[in-house]
Amino acid sequence: MSLHGTYDSQNIFALIIRGDLPCYKLYEDDDVLAFLDLFPQSRGHSLVIPKRAAARNILEIDDASLAKVMAVVKKVTQAVVDELQPAGVQVAQFNGAPAGQTVFHIHMHVIPRFEGEGLGIHAATKADPAELEALQARLVKRLQG
Amino acid sequence: MSLHGTYDSQNIFALIIRGDLPCYKLYEDDDVLAFLDLFPQSRGHSLVIPKRAAARNILEIDDASLAKVMAVVKKVTQAVVDELQPAGVQVAQFNGAPAGQTVFHIHMHVIPRFEGEGLGIHAATKADPAELEALQARLVKRLQG
Repeated sequence: MSLHGTYDSQNIFALIIRGDLPCYKLYEDDDVLAFLDLFPQSRGHSLVIPKRAAARNILEIDDASLAKVMAVVKKVTQAVVDELQPAGVQVAQFNGAPAGQTVFHIHMHVIPRFEGEGLGIHAATKADPAELEALQARLVKRLQG
Repeated sequence: MSLHGTYDSQNIFALIIRGDLPCYKLYEDDDVLAFLDLFPQSRGHSLVIPKRAAARNILEIDDASLAKVMAVVKKVTQAVVDELQPAGVQVAQFNGAPAGQTVFHIHMHVIPRFEGEGLGIHAATKADPAELEALQARLVKRLQG
């Protein structure tokens, strides 16, 4: 069952944390990293991950790391709401491939919902880099403001 | 926009917290309450809420209360995995009606996913009380074990 297994230190979020892969970074501190999803389900779809916890899913993360991640989820949600003014925001976290997990380093999704717009299928379409850069700049400004 | 507004102290989760409405309780401490969803999207669909924070959504909850809620989300997820052995588990939190929020007291959904079973539509079908009671007994035992 995909809920059990060994943490793969070569997963793409581990590479991003180590700086071996780039990302559209929104926020970073000693414990937590937030960045834009490359295959967004909506405009502003962001991901928040722990940097120090080698945890595949919620069963494996320690409470303190989870708390730090959630505090940043809140910050990112506030920035997204202030800057993009969505009608709503979904926060989601998937455990195991049958639940929609595609990268096996725990991550929280922050998915803005806009009136009259459905959600794209995750990992179906790569976003335009120029759009991601522009979004990144707007959200980073909010997060620093 | 439904992300903004005033906390309604008569919302059904507030009534549950005050003991004015019953629930299929799974876990309770001074700060957090977990119970079965009456309109489950899957077998074992549970909700975890803060008891002291009068927060409509993630923008309104303080970090400490959110941390306590998430620690219980982790506990409940572990119990659900151990007891029901789903293929995966989705953790979700909806902010604003357009994002799927139906009760305006912040709550985390813990939604087990079973191989070959799609998700029911939320709030569409009320679960059989006998089934909920049986599930409650099994999960409470796990949570106390």
